Amino acid sequence: MDYIAQLEEKAKLANQAARVMAVLSTTEKNNALYAMAKALEEKQGFIINENKKDLANGKEKGLSTALLDRLMLDEARIQAMAEGLRQTAALPDPIGEGISSTRRPNGLEIQKVRVPLGVIGIIYEARPNVTVDAAGLCLKSGNAVILRGGSEAIQSNMAIVKVIGETMEKSGLPKGALGFIDTTDRKVVNAMLKLNQYLDVIIPRGGAGLIKTVVENSSVPVIETGTGVCHTYVDETADFTMAMNIALNAKVSRPAVCNAMETLLVHQAIASDFLPTMLEQFIEVGVEIRGCSETQKYHSAVIAATEEDWQAEYGDLILAIKVVENIDEAIEHIAKYNTKHSETIVTKDYDMARKFQQEVDAAAVYVNASTRFTDGFEFGFGAEIGISTQKLHARGPMGLPELTSIKYLISGSGQIR
Amino acid sequence: MDYIAQLEEKAKLANQAARVMAVLSTTEKNNALYAMAKALEEKQGFIINENKKDLANGKEKGLSTALLDRLMLDEARIQAMAEGLRQTAALPDPIGEGISSTRRPNGLEIQKVRVPLGVIGIIYEARPNVTVDAAGLCLKSGNAVILRGGSEAIQSNMAIVKVIGETMEKSGLPKGALGFIDTTDRKVVNAMLKLNQYLDVIIPRGGAGLIKTVVENSSVPVIETGTGVCHTYVDETADFTMAMNIALNAKVSRPAVCNAMETLLVHQAIASDFLPTMLEQFIEVGVEIRGCSETQKYHSAVIAATEEDWQAEYGDLILAIKVVENIDEAIEHIAKYNTKHSETIVTKDYDMARKFQQEVDAAAVYVNASTRFTDGFEFGFGAEIGISTQKLHARGPMGLPELTSIKYLISGSGQIR
Repeated sequence: MDYIAQLEEKAKLANQAARVMAVLSTTEKNNALYAMAKALEEKQGFIINENKKDLANGKEKGLSTALLDRLMLDEARIQAMAEGLRQTAALPDPIGEGISSTRRPNGLEIQKVRVPLGVIGIIYEARPNVTVDAAGLCLKSGNAVILRGGSEAIQSNMAIVKVIGETMEKSGLPKGALGFIDTTDRKVVNAMLKLNQYLDVIIPRGGAGLIKTVVENSSVPVIETGTGVCHTYVDETADFTMAMNIALNAKVSRPAVCNAMETLLVHQAIASDFLPTMLEQFIEVGVEIRGCSETQKYHSAVIAATEEDWQAEYGDLILAIKVVENIDEAIEHIAKYNTKHSETIVTKDYDMARKFQQEVDAAAVYVNASTRFTDGFEFGFGAEIGISTQKLHARGPMGLPELTSIKYLISGSGQIR
Repeated sequence: MDYIAQLEEKAKLANQAARVMAVLSTTEKNNALYAMAKALEEKQGFIINENKKDLANGKEKGLSTALLDRLMLDEARIQAMAEGLRQTAALPDPIGEGISSTRRPNGLEIQKVRVPLGVIGIIYEARPNVTVDAAGLCLKSGNAVILRGGSEAIQSNMAIVKVIGETMEKSGLPKGALGFIDTTDRKVVNAMLKLNQYLDVIIPRGGAGLIKTVVENSSVPVIETGTGVCHTYVDETADFTMAMNIALNAKVSRPAVCNAMETLLVHQAIASDFLPTMLEQFIEVGVEIRGCSETQKYHSAVIAATEEDWQAEYGDLILAIKVVENIDEAIEHIAKYNTKHSETIVTKDYDMARKFQQEVDAAAVYVNASTRFTDGFEFGFGAEIGISTQKLHARGPMGLPELTSIKYLISGSGQIR
């Protein structure tokens, strides 16, 4: 059987499994999650051995040290995956929650209840822990899932899926609830994007290229995640120490993630007081600065920013800086270049804080805090499957409720219209 | 300027307008809606004259009497459109509603608030009243909108858009808040489906062909609406009179709409008692029956059903009937052929009612009531932009809240991570 036929077979199985998953009790789901955690711990030797094959292949292909580190699995990391599954088991079950109920004048009772989405396709890159996280969160929310991981982690992912998939079946979950695409053939991804008959949603997790491919080619509904061109705007009245702490944190605490700052905007009235020290601080920790002409005045190391810099998601220790005339220019700049992920203003002015939160269009709009907090755990969701940067269905960090849909249950006594 | 360039220009304008629309007060929006209603009434002569051109073209093209009737505008219908706008003004404004708020251990306050989607594209067919409804609902929910109506109604739609669009601008709403594509060139629709830069969502309203085209070709997120292959399942314990009333109502009260029944499923244990009378009733009111071999036994007028009949959305006085072994076969049949719109069971058995509502995957699952109630007004939403048959974002009848997204507002005092 060729890969496309195999994919369709898996999607069909997942679709059948989804009907069973939808009506599982919370206890059944939690028991499976605990068993999966235990199995990961018991079979860690096998997983680590398979992971070594990926690492060897990666070295041969010349993957960077950073990528190889992300790929690497050891006992501690497998322990963390198992712990994640146990935490997911401890989260409230979203399925069956009554969202609202009304009784209509004709006596019909209409209940709106939470149900699973059905079959979720997840296309992701690099880190093998996503395999476990995604499987666990989809299971807890009553969904079947089809996973397609990156080629670098194929052996590790197959090992993980073997371990947790077998455990799911042993725990009484339907065959097909966890599907994994064990080929790195790109044609299979393209075919997956057209499986409207079996898939209810596709969530891409990874770099901008992957997300663009999925958004442009999928006829299955997509939840776009992850790209973040985030701004910090330092307003005229900002506390300088607070502003510097926030800007530094937003840029350097973890530059590769999507909620890191890419562009700093500074009100012109404070530029000459604020920027010299701020620039020193960035340069001291190794941040390369690309600035507007005004910014360049304050440090000789500042490179001239181009149009590309305002658009860039560096994901690295590089920062674009622009001095703006006022908050309106800051909001304009953000509207033009942001990816609607996370934006923050540092200000003491009540009206400016309010204006910024109202007028900036992004999933998370902060006042006096670092954009780095846009994260399911930091928001208190207890889990995260990704951060949506679209406005449909889910926006911002997605936890278990974002993996659900609704259904109306209408109870009557013979009503006709 | 060619049509594609014009479309892009309109979408760009709509995108700019959306930022202004998002922060309008409820009073500003309602004043515009009342002014639009008044303008429709004052300019009804102009609109009716333009509508006559569409009717003349339609006759020339040989449109059916039913289609011509749907297209026709008179004083009463324009009055109804104006009334619709006034009702929309009277509905609660969804924008700014606080959905939840939490304070995190680090002191960050996180508020989840309702915001507009941004720019909504609506692609629709036939009835010119959709132009007014869609414009009004998008306005009230703070969205900009780009409308693309059917070629049959082009003159009527242009007249309506001229009247309400001018009134919107006079009421202080931004230019571009209501965009209309005044060409019937199909290339423009294809271009619209790729305008991710400016459009946040596309809602197709119309026949299965239109919806399929949009779903398959759009890279802009889509809310799929409307196709309904709805079933009525008459269980072993059903009250026969109730079952017949519900089945008749679901099929004949308005056969062309999406919540009408297309297939009747009957438990085998009652088939010989129930079907003879039921069939008589259907045939008496002119319903053509396509039945399984068991059904054919009970009336000579029953044509043999084929595979296509189980899949068909007739939208007409035609009904498929199948006798099933039990509720499980009914649920299986529904899972295989339904479009996840509306399904009903007629039963006196508590367990069967519960099983049906739990296991059937559809936007609306009824017990002892007609599927014809799946409708925004019948559900008490006060408005309806369409009925979603997908699971992402919105499911079932969509009112004003379904035209919104959310945004997290995070207030801090210098928190870093």
